[in-house]
Order: sequence, then structure tokens, then C-alpha cells
Amino acid sequence: MMEHVRCAKCISCGREWEAKPDITTCPDCGGLLDIQYDYDTIARAVNRETMARRPERSMWRYLEYLPVRGMGSRPRLRVGWSPFYEAERLAKVLGLRKLYIKDDGINPTASLKDRASAMAVVKAEEAGAEIIACSSTGNAASSLAGNAAAAGFPTYIFVPSRAPKGKVSQLMIFGAHVISVQGSYEETFRLSQEAIERYGWYNRNAAINPYLMEGKKTVALEIAEQLDWQMTDYVALSVGDGCTIAGVWKGFCDLYATGMIDRLPRLISVQAEGCCPLNRAIATGEPWQPMEENTLADSIAVGVPRNADKALRAIRDSHGVVVNVSDEEILAAARLLGRTAGVFGEPAGVAGTAGVKKALELGLIPPDASVVSIVTGNGLKDTPNAIRAAGEPVTIRPDLDELLAVMERL
Amino acid sequence: MMEHVRCAKCISCGREWEAKPDITTCPDCGGLLDIQYDYDTIARAVNRETMARRPERSMWRYLEYLPVRGMGSRPRLRVGWSPFYEAERLAKVLGLRKLYIKDDGINPTASLKDRASAMAVVKAEEAGAEIIACSSTGNAASSLAGNAAAAGFPTYIFVPSRAPKGKVSQLMIFGAHVISVQGSYEETFRLSQEAIERYGWYNRNAAINPYLMEGKKTVALEIAEQLDWQMTDYVALSVGDGCTIAGVWKGFCDLYATGMIDRLPRLISVQAEGCCPLNRAIATGEPWQPMEENTLADSIAVGVPRNADKALRAIRDSHGVVVNVSDEEILAAARLLGRTAGVFGEPAGVAGTAGVKKALELGLIPPDASVVSIVTGNGLKDTPNAIRAAGEPVTIRPDLDELLAVMERL
Repeated sequence: MMEHVRCAKCISCGREWEAKPDITTCPDCGGLLDIQYDYDTIARAVNRETMARRPERSMWRYLEYLPVRGMGSRPRLRVGWSPFYEAERLAKVLGLRKLYIKDDGINPTASLKDRASAMAVVKAEEAGAEIIACSSTGNAASSLAGNAAAAGFPTYIFVPSRAPKGKVSQLMIFGAHVISVQGSYEETFRLSQEAIERYGWYNRNAAINPYLMEGKKTVALEIAEQLDWQMTDYVALSVGDGCTIAGVWKGFCDLYATGMIDRLPRLISVQAEGCCPLNRAIATGEPWQPMEENTLADSIAVGVPRNADKALRAIRDSHGVVVNVSDEEILAAARLLGRTAGVFGEPAGVAGTAGVKKALELGLIPPDASVVSIVTGNGLKDTPNAIRAAGEPVTIRPDLDELLAVMERL
Repeated sequence: MMEHVRCAKCISCGREWEAKPDITTCPDCGGLLDIQYDYDTIARAVNRETMARRPERSMWRYLEYLPVRGMGSRPRLRVGWSPFYEAERLAKVLGLRKLYIKDDGINPTASLKDRASAMAVVKAEEAGAEIIACSSTGNAASSLAGNAAAAGFPTYIFVPSRAPKGKVSQLMIFGAHVISVQGSYEETFRLSQEAIERYGWYNRNAAINPYLMEGKKTVALEIAEQLDWQMTDYVALSVGDGCTIAGVWKGFCDLYATGMIDRLPRLISVQAEGCCPLNRAIATGEPWQPMEENTLADSIAVGVPRNADKALRAIRDSHGVVVNVSDEEILAAARLLGRTAGVFGEPAGVAGTAGVKKALELGLIPPDASVVSIVTGNGLKDTPNAIRAAGEPVTIRPDLDELLAVMERL
């Protein structure tokens, strides 16, 4: 039925499986699966010119690159085709030749995860599922809740109890059955897996479900097209579970394999100093080890990354750069993006930009480089940290003299 | 220079003025000004077919209908062309034949006000201004802060101290100089006007600045095009200052005058029961009187609407329907939109939908009507009220037995 999709291939044992819509991990060895395409079929179907003429402005613009038969028959939110800005003033502040911001906080539930969840909803429909479930630090959850609500799927969603109020309020509004777990993300994840097995729900857990990465890769497809297919030297983003960076790399590789772009960018993998198991593995050359989840950037506070193997492979294959940022650097990046570019990202959303700044300072990337920095989530999802980053306003009585006194001080 | 713009005409004394970029109210009588177009010029420049071929997907798609020479030379956020959904399940729940949702919370700073602020920034540049200022219950402020930050304009912004944290955090992140005023919106507004006069800042106060409405009207232009120019019977939205409903009406009238649509919709003006000075004026036929600002929907808690005259004219000219909703009805609408359509609106954002429900219940609109409901702001702007609407999640320890017990109860 899908001649452009070859199979689901295990990244551990190499065995190839039919890409069924509800396939999760390798039935043989439990390894993660990777959806494989027939690139010749895709290359015959699309090129830069045909793409330019397409009216669709969403992630589904790139149907030939996606492991679906179509967009499904259910109503859906408009996910993707998020804004792409050249950030000249920010580049100047950082001392960088070219900087672009991909603002993926401008999505229906305000994060990049909408791309994965929209994909999950379509695959759940293909699988004939009735209920979708996942665990998440927050964004995967709220995106699943929203996209599933639009499509009429009930959801069960497991969140660690530390998830910010903004994200939890989204889940509740979207009518998800929310289980708040008093434990780490790892414990939350395990509980969700047990429940999914027991009840037979469609599994939208990142890494476990190989299709989610295919949804996430659409951010890379859009970046390439928004750059008019002229890739930058680097693409920077924050990394938690590893699923997004693996998806982004997959997107660029798919485009490269089908002749849409002429060169691949190097990835800049940004993690928090207090939780950087993947970057540490790259830096030391050792296997990754679990870490504490010690950062205010909740979306990347993942001590046991579920998609470690694919993420590490993506960073290495791209000759990537790894850089860890402190919470203070993250908050500073939030201010910087807001003030110079008018872009408001959540802590994990702006961590990529914090990493660009730090990579420049450390000489890991040259000042004459061109960089895309992906903002993965909207700042409105975590206003307490925004206030922490930017401070409180001056408060006065409605009186001109009081105002004049304040103006003197400013 | 702008042959499609005729003048700025006073809606009180009728005098016509040159549409200078920094014009505010009528120099003669202080009345509000209305930008007037030469519709023949516009109709010669565009039609449905030429519009369909345009690649631009933002409010600037409709340049011929806008009082600008161009989009300005400064960087800008991508405002407008927000998602438009047919909400079949919600229509069924309400017992309505056709319902569409225009989700204007999907904008760079997450509200419809981005349209006005993007316009203000372009006009400020045309006027050669250096600083932009406004007062706002929140969304106008955050949109000005964000759009001005992208363009490199400093801003002074006056907010009543009751503005939700989410909105204030946006201002601070965008680097605005924020003055939080311990008083009503009316007092905040007055103080801003005094300061603007004293310092000569560019004035982005709604109503006072006639161009803002022209930015807001782009939501109507998009709705019409997203309906393939086949207008619905009604368009519903919440009303505070009156500027948005006046802009929406202006947009439809401009399209009608230039032959792009064949009929005008009737407006459904939705206000809060605790603050409905405009709807009360329509219902009683009396002049409007100030009211208390007694609603949790902060964006429409406007006891002294600045754009009353234009708003009342718009409602009357459209043979509009007025309906007031309680805070409980607003919170119920937030749940309903989230659960059935995957759309998360702030209280004022969903009030329009609450009004559609109530208008149906009261028999003010027939069940076989077609309606567009505009969601004017994103729910992430006010998460405390979202939690109030939707409740808190179930909290358990990471333990399957505890989960099973919860599942029994659900």
C-alpha cells in the first residue's frame, strides 16, 4: 500500500519488519525500530519545483516523505509550517555571521511535539485503535491531548508531578485522562508502559513508537525548504529523550538521499549541565549513563533518555557539536531571544540558542558559521521561569508624578 | 503615495483628514477616525483568483486592503493566517448546523492583537517614530512588546496590575519597559495617554490610533478566504474595548464593497454578564454607560470601552445579535472547545463560543445557521483559569496497583 516505505528496521539487530501502524520495538531483540524508505520512489515523486507549487502549509506538505497512506479521515489541527526568521540583531549580539530561528512554539499546542502527536493520531487511526496513551514531561502529553481531542480519540496520559502547570492545564482542557505520577520521568514512563500493555492502548511513547520521529523530522524538511534548500553549516537544538534530534537528523538525511539538499548540516546538541547523559557520552566516548534530572528546563530533564542510541548516532553521523548550558545561561537566552527577535520560548525551547552562544564562546563553532536554532516550545508553557528570567514590572499608582519619578530611574 | 487610501474620516463630525501615519483622533472635535479606501482601486487590483495564487501566508497577504505603503523595512513576526477549522463535533454538541473556529490564539504572541500591533509597528516606522507605547489589559501589550522587539523598537507599556502573569511575563521577556498600574483599565489608559503626550511616543492605544482596527480587520479577510468567500450567516466574537468587533466588521464591509463576498454576516457580540456596557446599550437602545469590570475574562473586562461608537455601529449595521455570558459559561466553553476541537482559548478567547451556545439556547440564532466563532487568544495566557475550568489531575505514586484502583474509579 505504501510503496515509498520499505520496512521498519531494528537499529540493534538489523532485522527488518513490515511497517505495521502499531509496531513498536523489535519483536526479536527489543531494539528500537527505524522506518526505512525507498528513496528512488520519493525522488521520482517530488523535486524542489513541484514542492514550491504546493498550497499545503503544514507538516503534511511532505506526504511523500512520511510513513502514512494519507492524512487520515479525522479532523486534525494545523501542525507545522511554523515561522522561520533570520535573526540579524541576535546574530550581531552573539558575533555570528548568520542565525535563523525556527519558532516551533507556534504550533497548535505550542511545541514541536505536535508533529509527533499528529503522526501518532494518524497511525492510531490506521491501526484501528480506540484509545491513545503516553507518558511525557509535558509537551508530548499536551500535544497528544490536543491532537487526539481534535480527532475524537480518548487519551490516557502519564506526567511526572513536577510538570509545569501550563502544560497540565492544557491536558485537562483537552479532556485527557491525566495521571500525575509522584516520581521521576523514568518511573512515570515505566508505569505508562505497564498500563499500555495491560489495556492495549495505542502507544505514543517516544522512541518506542518509531513513527513519532517521522513526524518530528518534518521540522527539518521545513527548515530546508524555508532556507530555499541551501543548508546552513549547523542546526542547534536542545536534547532530552533524544527523539527530536534523531528525527531532525533523519529529516535532513532523507532530503539529502533524495537530492533535495546538497549537503548535510552539523548538529549542535544542547543539554543542561545538570542533565546531559547524551552529551557526556559523546564527549567522553563512553556508553551513556543515567543522570539526575537537575535543570529548570523540564522538557529536557531526562536522566534516562529513551532514544539514546538513535540520538547518539545522529550526533556522531553529523560530526556534531555537544555543549551543555547552565540554568542561568538558559534564562539569559530566553531574555535574548525575546528582546532581539520577539520570540518567546520555554526554557528547553531556548536552550538551543543558549548552546549556540556558548559554543561560540568556547570556540566550538566559528563566528563565520551559519546556524539554525530551533525553538522547540512556547514560553507561555512555563511563565514562572519566564518571570524568573525577565523579572517583575515596576508597579505604581495611577499618578503621573509617580510615573515621572519612575522614568527618571529607568 | 497610497492611491487606495482616501483619507481618515471623523466618525463624529464627518471631517476628512489626510491619513498621516501618526494621526490619532480628529484634530477638530476629538472624535475617532476611520480610514477610508477607494474601493474601485482595490477592486481593480485584486480578485478571488489573483488572491488564490498568492504565496504570502500572513496578514500582509491583503496589502491592497491595508493602509500601508508596504510591510516596512524592519524584521517582523509572522502574524495572521491563523488556523481555521470546521468544528463538526462541537456543532453537534451545540445543536448547530455549521460551526467554524478561527483560532487566532495561534499567532506569534498568541492573540488576535498581534494583527493590530504588527500594523502599529509598520506605521510607527512610516511616521519616523523611535518609541512605541500603549496601555492594555494584556494582549495588546504583549503583542506590541513582541512585534516591536522583532522590529527593534523600544516600548513603554502600561498594564493594570490585575493582568495575568502569563501576559506580563511576555512583556518582560520581550524587553518592554512595563509600568504596572494599581488601578482600573480606565485609570491605566489615562496615565498612558498623559505619558504619550508628554514624551511624544508613537501611540498604539486602540481606538485612538485608527490604524489598529485596519490590522485587526485582517482576521475577517482571512475568514472570508478560508470559507472560499462563501460567508456564514453569523460571526461571533467577544467584545471588550470594541476595537476588534469594529475591525472585523470593517473587514467584511471592505470585501463586500470590492465584490469579494456576496453577502455580509451578522455579528454576534458576546460580552461578560459582569461587564457588558456595549451589549446593554444595544439591548436597551440607550447610550452606553460605564460598568464595573466584573469578569474573570480579563481581556474583555473593559468597563469604559474606548471604541464604543464604532463597535455599536458595527453591531447595528450588521443586524447583530448581543448575548452576555457568565464566568461559568465561559469556563464551560473552554472545556468544550478543548475537548471537542482541540482548541485551547483564554477566557475572553472562548467567550465567543460561549455566546454561540447561549444564543442558540435563547433562540437568538436558529439551529440551522452557519457560524464562525473567533477564538481571540490562547489559553496558555491564563493557566489559572484553565485549571479552574478543567480541574486538577489525579495524582498517584508510581505504582501499578494504585493506577488500577484509579482506573476503576474513572
